[in-house]
Amino acid sequence: MTAVYSFALGTGTQNSKGEWLEVFYPSPQLGASQKVIDILKSVLWYAGGNEVLAATQEQMRVLAEQFSVAGEGDLAKTAMKLSASRQPLVATVLINDEKPTTAPEVYLKLHLLSHRLVKPHTTTLDGMFGLLLNVAWTNEGAIDINELAERQLQARVEGRLLEVMSVDKFPKMANYVVPKGVRIAHTARVRLGAYLGEGTTIMHEGFVNFNAGTEGTAMIEGRISAGVFVGESSDLGGGCSTMGTLSGGNAVVISVGKECLIGANAGIGIPLGDRCTVEAGLYITAGSIVQLIDADGKLADKVKARDLAGKSDLLFRRNSINGAIEVLTNKSAIELNHELHAHN
Amino acid sequence: MTAVYSFALGTGTQNSKGEWLEVFYPSPQLGASQKVIDILKSVLWYAGGNEVLAATQEQMRVLAEQFSVAGEGDLAKTAMKLSASRQPLVATVLINDEKPTTAPEVYLKLHLLSHRLVKPHTTTLDGMFGLLLNVAWTNEGAIDINELAERQLQARVEGRLLEVMSVDKFPKMANYVVPKGVRIAHTARVRLGAYLGEGTTIMHEGFVNFNAGTEGTAMIEGRISAGVFVGESSDLGGGCSTMGTLSGGNAVVISVGKECLIGANAGIGIPLGDRCTVEAGLYITAGSIVQLIDADGKLADKVKARDLAGKSDLLFRRNSINGAIEVLTNKSAIELNHELHAHN
Amino acid sequence: MTAVYSFALGTGTQNSKGEWLEVFYPSPQLGASQKVIDILKSVLWYAGGNEVLAATQEQMRVLAEQFSVAGEGDLAKTAMKLSASRQPLVATVLINDEKPTTAPEVYLKLHLLSHRLVKPHTTTLDGMFGLLLNVAWTNEGAIDINELAERQLQARVEGRLLEVMSVDKFPKMANYVVPKGVRIAHTARVRLGAYLGEGTTIMHEGFVNFNAGTEGTAMIEGRISAGVFVGESSDLGGGCSTMGTLSGGNAVVISVGKECLIGANAGIGIPLGDRCTVEAGLYITAGSIVQLIDADGKLADKVKARDLAGKSDLLFRRNSINGAIEVLTNKSAIELNHELHAHN
Repeated sequence: MTAVYSFALGTGTQNSKGEWLEVFYPSPQLGASQKVIDILKSVLWYAGGNEVLAATQEQMRVLAEQFSVAGEGDLAKTAMKLSASRQPLVATVLINDEKPTTAPEVYLKLHLLSHRLVKPHTTTLDGMFGLLLNVAWTNEGAIDINELAERQLQARVEGRLLEVMSVDKFPKMANYVVPKGVRIAHTARVRLGAYLGEGTTIMHEGFVNFNAGTEGTAMIEGRISAGVFVGESSDLGGGCSTMGTLSGGNAVVISVGKECLIGANAGIGIPLGDRCTVEAGLYITAGSIVQLIDADGKLADKVKARDLAGKSDLLFRRNSINGAIEVLTNKSAIELNHELHAHN
Repeated sequence: MTAVYSFALGTGTQNSKGEWLEVFYPSPQLGASQKVIDILKSVLWYAGGNEVLAATQEQMRVLAEQFSVAGEGDLAKTAMKLSASRQPLVATVLINDEKPTTAPEVYLKLHLLSHRLVKPHTTTLDGMFGLLLNVAWTNEGAIDINELAERQLQARVEGRLLEVMSVDKFPKMANYVVPKGVRIAHTARVRLGAYLGEGTTIMHEGFVNFNAGTEGTAMIEGRISAGVFVGESSDLGGGCSTMGTLSGGNAVVISVGKECLIGANAGIGIPLGDRCTVEAGLYITAGSIVQLIDADGKLADKVKARDLAGKSDLLFRRNSINGAIEVLTNKSAIELNHELHAHN
Repeated sequence: MTAVYSFALGTGTQNSKGEWLEVFYPSPQLGASQKVIDILKSVLWYAGGNEVLAATQEQMRVLAEQFSVAGEGDLAKTAMKLSASRQPLVATVLINDEKPTTAPEVYLKLHLLSHRLVKPHTTTLDGMFGLLLNVAWTNEGAIDINELAERQLQARVEGRLLEVMSVDKFPKMANYVVPKGVRIAHTARVRLGAYLGEGTTIMHEGFVNFNAGTEGTAMIEGRISAGVFVGESSDLGGGCSTMGTLSGGNAVVISVGKECLIGANAGIGIPLGDRCTVEAGLYITAGSIVQLIDADGKLADKVKARDLAGKSDLLFRRNSINGAIEVLTNKSAIELNHELHAHN
């Protein structure tokens, strides 16, 4: 009996050297039955370990038949569908969650995140950047950046526009999967590998990087940097900022708890607990000295903002008379506008 | 004689259950002549009231002929053109401005706004969210979100990219109408239902929600939230924020008067009168206490910003020595850079 | 012997009146040999000066042959490729860098910038706005704004979506050229005429206008306004703002030196020297009075920010206890996160 971390059938794009630019896995899954593994051994000579198995159209049809016989109806359906593709086909097996060693493995893990099969920070992505090529994402699919100029000229000459939407190592999520119960007003701002909880709305000014996202219901009009996870029923105002783990200067992973409200154009350089509010336009950096105000409105203490990391029920504001950053206990529960969350 | 609020011919998209995803009305109009109503009664069995009348291609051709005979040349031309469409056809009649009860009615009202036939807040949109489905807006048109995954896989297998540009209840305006005399550097950021006055430029960082917009000439590099209307010759700096009526905490409708300047990364939680300036980077929330500075530079009073709602000729800034938010009378008229407004 | 400023072969789009909407020059160059000029005289009756020479497909083939014979292999290849195009063909010669007088000349200069053949502020663009038409940039190419409505309706009737991506005088850069060694997460936010140095990453929130850009390695998550140039190894944080020369109120050209860091949601209204830091969320306007803090943490002086224009090794922050904007000597060299710059 072989324990399996993840398995998926896919089709992808390679450059003229046969290197992978991207892989689309329509139905990735955690785990796989022994029968599935045995079929892979028999049809694709799977020899164990984490492996990306190339498959011909004919092999994919055989997989479909054998999956069907083995009672793996969903896999059979996907395999049958994919077998019609003229683009390269793969069956990717991850026995364990070790760091990826090929682009198709990275893509599988990014799919697991965006399909909500694993949460941010729970799958190993170490070294992924070096495995991904810089790709031109176009209306004619993924194109190797070194092959772009010729393709653009060729398209022009043939009277077509080759629309280059992005030049990046990561594609946009929505061209791979749109999980249930979300709205994404502008898909160019959510990378594959984002985790969007059910009930999340990403407005036009919202942004979500990979390995980051929202637990559940959320109204996101600000930027969720790589590694940042936002709790249930929190609201990120327009243009607000969360410092990413990639942005240097801070080894602490930023997160936002439940029922928080970060105001428009505000920002945080510390993790927030639950029911915290940051006033619109105020940026809290880890090194900011903030004044603790007690229930009587008196100054109780001065601390660095980083000392408040992860604490709940705080309200951050800048005193508009004396310019000091103050923190109060947030008595008013955040009342999320239900009309807003249901619709907007 | 039947008074008519609005009338339009259109073609749209339905999901596999026959529910409307969207409707495109190329030439919506306010009002309609009695002759038009009579023709609708005769050809489409229009029985009165606000109604969305389905039409076959043949019926649309008959409408074209009868409109032509009745001297309704523009309607005749539109009907003739539409009659070639294989997508569902409609004639939508709104006798009055009651709240919409179907998606095609909502779409007609959003068109009226974007065609500048009605101004924000002057047409009834109550309950519209519940009438609109969450749609995947793709390069192959509008797709029901529940039908997307299969369409994506099918496109891949056939060697095409199904590009998903947005997953939202609202489409972008520019795919329905681009009113005269505007520039929109990035159309993904202007929703159908926006009202853009002639002479408006929406730069890449600009954003305009539905039932919101600009009266006339304007340079918009910030965000115009739902319900916000901006007066003639005002300038919204890059990344600036206007609090929306949907964003909670504030029942007051935000607006911006004429010849205002909201600086880059600034924001307002109160309506502004005419010729007001908000310094770059300063967020004025309704509850901010601000210091009124008189002509001699002396502190005259302290008030909450909400008490200054709608007042003209104010300059808001944060004193860079003592951190206080101050408001002065704005003596320097805003000189909009004409080169900028003509071109940029 | 004729000195030549620039020469390029191209193909472009005209409206129904024969006016140029845009021109694509796949391989623009600085200078041109006397042989090339002589061939243009012979084949296209080039008579000298800055001129946009129309060419038929047949003439383009003749050019290809003669360029080949003259040892101009690259030009020959481009000409041969272009000769297959059914769109209008041009050969544009700029003898000198005088201000452009036609749209194809403007397009050539914008190409020179984006191909890194000239740096921002080193080519004459005076009067360019008036030479460019407002264009609808669509998935079916450039369309005159006055011809859009009819094209949209026609596409709908034929069952296609005419996707309007932008309504603007400038196209996005990436549909014309993607220079070597850059990533642009969202190409809609970089205009043709931007200059992106090798090693530049423009993240989703980044923006670069024409005649502006980066010298070399850079991580850009903020907005580079028209005319702003950013030095090697500088970092513009998410949503930060640089005041543009078009935005009025300031005749000084804003620039950013080497190894600077502008924090998220911050902004500058003055040029920065090298190794400067602006704290996240802080906007420095030219008129802000800032307090100079000496090595002992004592107040040394008060000056207007504009007096610090171009000075190096400064750290700008807002004191979080008393609200004053302070400037310190920036002792900690900016350590750009190499992992970030290599990949992100």
